[in-house]
Amino acid sequence: MPSLLEQIRPGLDAFSIELPSWGFANTGTRFGKYPQPAAAVTIEEKFADAAQVHALTGATPTLALHAQWDLPGGMEDCAAIQDLARRFGIRPGSINPNLFQDAEYKFGSLCHPDPAVRERARGHIEGCIAIAERLGSRDISLWLADGSNYPGSQNIRQRLRWLEEGLDQLYRRLRPGQRLLIEYKPFEPAFYHTDIADWGMAAYLARHTGPKAQVLVDTGHHYQGQNIEQIVAWLLHLGRLGGFHFNDRRYADDDLTMGSIDPYQVFRIFCELVLDPAAAADVAFMVDQSHNLKGKMEAMVQTVMTAQELYAKALLLDREALAEFQAAARIVEAEECLRAAFWTDVRPALAEWRQARGLPGDPLQALRAGGYVERCARERGGRGAAGGGYAG
Amino acid sequence: MPSLLEQIRPGLDAFSIELPSWGFANTGTRFGKYPQPAAAVTIEEKFADAAQVHALTGATPTLALHAQWDLPGGMEDCAAIQDLARRFGIRPGSINPNLFQDAEYKFGSLCHPDPAVRERARGHIEGCIAIAERLGSRDISLWLADGSNYPGSQNIRQRLRWLEEGLDQLYRRLRPGQRLLIEYKPFEPAFYHTDIADWGMAAYLARHTGPKAQVLVDTGHHYQGQNIEQIVAWLLHLGRLGGFHFNDRRYADDDLTMGSIDPYQVFRIFCELVLDPAAAADVAFMVDQSHNLKGKMEAMVQTVMTAQELYAKALLLDREALAEFQAAARIVEAEECLRAAFWTDVRPALAEWRQARGLPGDPLQALRAGGYVERCARERGGRGAAGGGYAG
Amino acid sequence: MPSLLEQIRPGLDAFSIELPSWGFANTGTRFGKYPQPAAAVTIEEKFADAAQVHALTGATPTLALHAQWDLPGGMEDCAAIQDLARRFGIRPGSINPNLFQDAEYKFGSLCHPDPAVRERARGHIEGCIAIAERLGSRDISLWLADGSNYPGSQNIRQRLRWLEEGLDQLYRRLRPGQRLLIEYKPFEPAFYHTDIADWGMAAYLARHTGPKAQVLVDTGHHYQGQNIEQIVAWLLHLGRLGGFHFNDRRYADDDLTMGSIDPYQVFRIFCELVLDPAAAADVAFMVDQSHNLKGKMEAMVQTVMTAQELYAKALLLDREALAEFQAAARIVEAEECLRAAFWTDVRPALAEWRQARGLPGDPLQALRAGGYVERCARERGGRGAAGGGYAG
Amino acid sequence: MPSLLEQIRPGLDAFSIELPSWGFANTGTRFGKYPQPAAAVTIEEKFADAAQVHALTGATPTLALHAQWDLPGGMEDCAAIQDLARRFGIRPGSINPNLFQDAEYKFGSLCHPDPAVRERARGHIEGCIAIAERLGSRDISLWLADGSNYPGSQNIRQRLRWLEEGLDQLYRRLRPGQRLLIEYKPFEPAFYHTDIADWGMAAYLARHTGPKAQVLVDTGHHYQGQNIEQIVAWLLHLGRLGGFHFNDRRYADDDLTMGSIDPYQVFRIFCELVLDPAAAADVAFMVDQSHNLKGKMEAMVQTVMTAQELYAKALLLDREALAEFQAAARIVEAEECLRAAFWTDVRPALAEWRQARGLPGDPLQALRAGGYVERCARERGGRGAAGGGYAG
Repeated sequence: MPSLLEQIRPGLDAFSIELPSWGFANTGTRFGKYPQPAAAVTIEEKFADAAQVHALTGATPTLALHAQWDLPGGMEDCAAIQDLARRFGIRPGSINPNLFQDAEYKFGSLCHPDPAVRERARGHIEGCIAIAERLGSRDISLWLADGSNYPGSQNIRQRLRWLEEGLDQLYRRLRPGQRLLIEYKPFEPAFYHTDIADWGMAAYLARHTGPKAQVLVDTGHHYQGQNIEQIVAWLLHLGRLGGFHFNDRRYADDDLTMGSIDPYQVFRIFCELVLDPAAAADVAFMVDQSHNLKGKMEAMVQTVMTAQELYAKALLLDREALAEFQAAARIVEAEECLRAAFWTDVRPALAEWRQARGLPGDPLQALRAGGYVERCARERGGRGAAGGGYAG
Repeated sequence: MPSLLEQIRPGLDAFSIELPSWGFANTGTRFGKYPQPAAAVTIEEKFADAAQVHALTGATPTLALHAQWDLPGGMEDCAAIQDLARRFGIRPGSINPNLFQDAEYKFGSLCHPDPAVRERARGHIEGCIAIAERLGSRDISLWLADGSNYPGSQNIRQRLRWLEEGLDQLYRRLRPGQRLLIEYKPFEPAFYHTDIADWGMAAYLARHTGPKAQVLVDTGHHYQGQNIEQIVAWLLHLGRLGGFHFNDRRYADDDLTMGSIDPYQVFRIFCELVLDPAAAADVAFMVDQSHNLKGKMEAMVQTVMTAQELYAKALLLDREALAEFQAAARIVEAEECLRAAFWTDVRPALAEWRQARGLPGDPLQALRAGGYVERCARERGGRGAAGGGYAG
Repeated sequence: MPSLLEQIRPGLDAFSIELPSWGFANTGTRFGKYPQPAAAVTIEEKFADAAQVHALTGATPTLALHAQWDLPGGMEDCAAIQDLARRFGIRPGSINPNLFQDAEYKFGSLCHPDPAVRERARGHIEGCIAIAERLGSRDISLWLADGSNYPGSQNIRQRLRWLEEGLDQLYRRLRPGQRLLIEYKPFEPAFYHTDIADWGMAAYLARHTGPKAQVLVDTGHHYQGQNIEQIVAWLLHLGRLGGFHFNDRRYADDDLTMGSIDPYQVFRIFCELVLDPAAAADVAFMVDQSHNLKGKMEAMVQTVMTAQELYAKALLLDREALAEFQAAARIVEAEECLRAAFWTDVRPALAEWRQARGLPGDPLQALRAGGYVERCARERGGRGAAGGGYAG
Repeated sequence: MPSLLEQIRPGLDAFSIELPSWGFANTGTRFGKYPQPAAAVTIEEKFADAAQVHALTGATPTLALHAQWDLPGGMEDCAAIQDLARRFGIRPGSINPNLFQDAEYKFGSLCHPDPAVRERARGHIEGCIAIAERLGSRDISLWLADGSNYPGSQNIRQRLRWLEEGLDQLYRRLRPGQRLLIEYKPFEPAFYHTDIADWGMAAYLARHTGPKAQVLVDTGHHYQGQNIEQIVAWLLHLGRLGGFHFNDRRYADDDLTMGSIDPYQVFRIFCELVLDPAAAADVAFMVDQSHNLKGKMEAMVQTVMTAQELYAKALLLDREALAEFQAAARIVEAEECLRAAFWTDVRPALAEWRQARGLPGDPLQALRAGGYVERCARERGGRGAAGGGYAG
C-alpha cells in the first residue's frame, strides 16, 4: 500500500491556487477600514507579496489582476506588469473588470437602462480582453454588481435581454484560448434583485453565449443552507465549471479565509473534483478574500496551507470503495469513506512534500520567523491608506 | 377613466386556480395530525368540497388529482372520476404521481441506484400520463422526493445522468397537448441533497428534455431571502414557466395559505405575469397547501379570495408609467407604481364582480352561513382518519 | 360608527418618528458609493433637510445625532447644535456613540482585550451621556460593532464579562430621565461572532444592568425567518422595549426603506404596540436607513408616509373582536381581523388628516413640486464627498 | 509531554452520552416512513438496543424515555422499566413529556387559550415529574410544540403569561435534585410563531422560574447562520446550560447524525465546555436524532463514536496558549490553536482507549461483524410498524 505522501504527491504537485492582488491591499467593511502598515499599495508591492507566498508554499504561481486598481492605464500598463512578472517569477492570472465603482454604474453596467452606459461597460470589458491577450492570461472573471434595491424600480426581464446581448457581443471578442468566467451572487451590493443571482442564471447565460463562457463559483455567494458541492457536480456535468473564488462565511459574503468556518464543505467540493479528474482539468482555483482583521500575509499563507490540506484529504478518498457502497445504497459505509479521508491528518505528509521541494515544512511559521511582514511595515508604513480595494 | 371594476374584470374573468384533492383530506406534520370531522376521505367527498368552493368563488373549475391516493386502481378508476367530474361540474386537473411513499423509494425513484426501482418509477409516471390522457388533463406535475441525507452516501452526478435518461424516456410517452411540469425543492424529505434542488436544475432538465417539459414553481420551495419573482421573470423569458404551486411559509416549506405571511411577494409574482400576458398565457395556477389547523373549507375559500385580490391588484398596475420610470431610472416613482396598485382596496370591486356573476359577495361569510362544513362533519365524522395525505 | 379618519386621528396625532442625521449624507456599500449633489454635508444641512421633511409630513420633530460625525468637538459643539435646533424647529434626538470607526476598535470597544481600549470606549460613551444631558436628549443608542471574525480568535465568555462591567459603569453615569438603548445585531461588521448578537443577549444585559437600560430593535438585525413581532411582544412583556430602528431588507442588514420589502411585517409589529398602548407608551420610533440609490429626501419622505400608513392600518384593528376570536381559537376569523385592517386603504384618510393640519396631502408630490432637492443640489453640489457616513 | 491518549483519557473516562428510546423505533418524515425490520417496537427492545450500543462503546449508560410511548401506563409502568434497567444495565435517563400528539393540543399545551387544556398539560408534566422521581431520573426535558400558524390567530403576549404561570406551578412540584430542562425551537410543528422560539426566551423563562430550571440546547433548533457556541458560552455564564440534544442539519431541524454536516461546529461547542469544566460539570449530553434512512443501530454507534472523537479533539486544546494569544489579539495564532486540535487524528488513541477498557477498537465494525442487527431483523421483523415515534 502506498504511503500517504505517495497517495497525495501527484495531485499536490499539480495543485496551484491563484492569489488576488487586492488581497494584499487595505480593505474594509462599509463601517470603516483598519489600515495595516505592511499592506501593499503599489502593484509592485502586490507582486512582491505574492512572490513571498509562493516562495513559502510553492503553490501560487499566478496573481489575479484588477483592471481598475492594477492597470489604471489599461494597455499602457501591460509592459510594466510584464516586467514585474519576470522579476518576481509570478505570472499574471485572471483579469478582473470593475463595473461597480464609478458613479455611471449606479443602476447597472451591462444591464443599465441607458444604452450609453451599457456601451461603456462593454468597452471596459473589451479592454480587459485585450489586456488578457497581451499578458497571456486565459481568463476574464466577470462579476457584475448589477441589480436593483427596490421592487419595481427596474425591469428584470428587459435587463436580462440586455445581458444576453452584451455577453453575445463580448463573446465575439474573445481571443483563442480565452475564457469568460461568469460569476453569480445573490445579494450585495444590490439588495432587492441581482441580475445574475445564482448558479442557474450564470449557467443559462454561459450556455446561451457559447462554450468559452464558463461559470465562476464564489463559495461565499450562495443562499444559506445551499449545497455547493451539488452545484459543482452539476456544472461539471454540464461542462461549465470554469473556476472558483474561494473564501468562507457564516452569514453572507463575509470573505473570510477558506475553510475557516466550514472546512468539511470545502473538502466535499474538492471530492467532487477528485471524483472526475478529466472534467475538472481546466477548473481554475482562485482565492477571493478580504482580510480586515488578520494580517494579510499571514492570512494568505494560512489560506494556501488550508487549501492544500483539504485538497490532500480529498485525494485520499477511496473512490472504488465509495462507488461500490453508493451503488448498493450502503449509505453509512459510503459516508465513512468520506470521513475516513477527512479525518486523516495530512499535515505531516504535507510537511514532507514541502521539504522535498526545498520549501519550509511550516510556511506560516517560516513567514513569522522570516521578518518579511515587519520589513514591509517599516518600508511601506506611514504612507496614506490609498491603493484601491473594497470600501476604498 | 375606467372604474376599478372595469380595469380588473377581463383579467378576473380569465383567472382560475386549481385546487388540490389532498387539500381537503386530513394531513399533519411529522409530529402528528389533528383529524377534522368534516375532512374529505373519499374521492367523491373531495369533488364535493371542490364544487362547493367553486360555487362560492366561481374560480376553481378543476381539481388536481393524486395518482396513489385518488386513483389507487389506476386506469380502472378513471370512469368513476369522470362520473364525479360530470356530477359536480369540476374537471380533473393536473395528475400527480407519487414517488415517495412506498418503501422501494427509500433511496430515490428516477435517481435510485437500483435500475429496477428506476424502471418501476418510470412505469408509474407512464401510468399517470395514460390517466391524464383518459381524463383530458393537460399537465403531469412531477415532484421527485429523490435525494440523500448524508455527504457521500450517494453519487450526485451519476444520479443526474439517470434523471436525464428517465426524463428522456418519459418525454417520448407524452401525448399531444400534454406537458410535463418539473418541480424543484431545496430540502425535505431529503435533507442533505435533493436531486432537483432549485429552479436552475429544473430549467436545465426542462431544456434538456424538450419543449413540453416545463418548470413548476412551488412558492414554498426556495431558500430564505430568494427573489421568487425574478425566477418567474427568467422562466417566462426562457419560455419554461409551466405553472405554480401556491402556498406561503415563514421558514421552510410550511404549506401555509397563500399570501398569509408575505402578500407583497405574491403580488410581485403576479405583476411579472401581468407585465407579459402573452408569455404567461399557459401558466397554470395551482394551490398546494396542507391545513393542519385551519378548517379545510375555510382555508380553501380564503386562499381563493386572497389569490383573486392579489391578482386584481396586479391588474391595476400602470404599466406604461412603470416602463417610463424604469427606463429613466426614476426609481422611487417606479416603485410607487407597484405600491399604488398594491395599496388599492380591491375588495369592494371584487364583491361587485362576484355579485354580477351571481356569486356571494363575501364567499367566506357565505361558507359560514351556509352550514356546509357542519353538514359534512355530521355526515363524515366518526369514520377513521384514513384517506391518504401527507403524514398519513 | 366613527369614520376612518376619526378612528386613526388620535393615534396619528401622537405618532412621531425620529430621522437620522446620517440618512441625509452620502453613504455607500463596501463596493463604493455614489455621491448625490443634494446630499447634506454639514450638520446645518442635515437640520435643514430634517426640517423640510417635518414641514411636509408633520411627523418628524427630532433628529438623531451621531457623536463623531455631528459633534466632532463633543461638548464644544452643543451650543451650535442648540442654535440649529431653534432655528430649524427640530429638537436633538437620540445620541449615537461611534465605537467602530477608529483603528483602536479593530478588535472591539467595551469588549476589547486591552483594558485601555475598553476605558477609552467607556469614556466616549460617557461623553455622549453628557452631550445628551446638555441637549435634552433622553436616549443614548448604543450599538457595539464588537465581535470577531474567526473561531477561537477571541474569548467569548471573557468578553461578556467585560461587557457587563462596562455597562454597569456607564449605567451609573446616566442622568435622571435618560435611557441607555442596547442594540443587537447578528452579523456585520464582525462575521464570526458579534458580542451582542440577538434580542436575548440585549435583554439579558438590560435586565442585568438596570431599569433604565432598554433594548433597541433594529428591524434589519435579525436572522432570516425570525419572527420580529414576537420579539416585540416579549420585550413589551419584560418592560424592556426602548425603541426601534426601522428599515427593511431582503437578505442581511440592507438598510432599505421601511416596509419596502415586507410591509405586512411592519404592520404586525405596529399591531403588537397598538394592542398594549400602556406598555408601548415610551417606545421610540427611529429610522435607520442608508439610501445608496434613492434620492435621500425622496426616500425619507416616502419612509415617513409608509410608517404613517402602516401605523394607521394597525390603529384600525378591531381589538375586541380579535381577542374574542383568539380566545375561542377561531383562527381564521382572528387572522381576518388583521387582514381587514391591513387591506383598508388609509391613504385618503391620511391625506385628509394632513390637510386638516395645513400639510400637503401628498408630501412626496409636494417635495417634487417644491424644488427643494434641486435647490440643494445647486447650492451643495460640487463640493467634495466628505461628510461622515457609512463606507465614508 | 503526555501522549495523546494520556491527554484525552481523563476527559473521555468521564464522557457519557444519553441515547433516546425513540431513536431505535421506526420514524419518518411527513411524507411517509420506511420501516426497518430490525427497528425496536417494545420498550424491552429499546433497552436491548441501548445496551448493545453501550456494550460496543462503553459510553451510553442511560436511556432517555418518552412518557407517552414508553410509559403509556404512567406510574404503573415504572416497575417494569426498573426491571429492564437492571436486566440490561442501562439506567433510565431524562423523562420526556409529550404535549403535541393528542388532538387537544392542536392550539397549544401550557399556552392553550382553554384553561382546561393548560391544566391537562400541567397534569401530564407533573406525572412525568413523579415518574422521574420513581425512576431516579434527574431531568425532565420539556419541549413545547406550542405556537401558531398564522399572524393574529393567537395572542402572543397572553400565551407568554400562561407559560410563566404554568412553569411556576410545575417548578413547585420538582423534587430535590430534579431539574426542568426548557427546550426552544424556532419553527415546526408551528410555522408562524413558536411560544419558546429561541435561547433568549428559554433563558428568560428559566431565570424567571428558578435555579432548577435550565435550558436545553438542541443543536438543530437554530436559525441558519446562528452561532451556537456563543449561545453555549452565554448559558454557561448565566449558569443555565442544562444539557444538549445533539443532531445535525443542513436546513431546518433535520435530525441527522451529530457532526455529519458540520463537525467543526460540534467541536467548537465542545471547546466552550472544555474551557470551563466547572461550569460545564452538570451539562447533560443527549442524542436526539431520527434516522429515516440509516440503519438505526449503525447510526447510533456512529453517533457515539463521532461524539467521542470530537470531544477528544476539544480535550487537546492548548488552553494556556489560546488564552495568551486571545489576550494579545494575535488572532491567527489563536485560531490555529483550535485548528491544531481539530486536525489531530484522535482515532488511533480512541481505539487504544477502548481496547484498554475491553471494548472493540472499532465499534461500528464490531456491530457489523457481530450480527446483532440481522438477529433483530429476524426476530422483530414481520410485525406491524407500530411502536410510537415521530410521524407515527
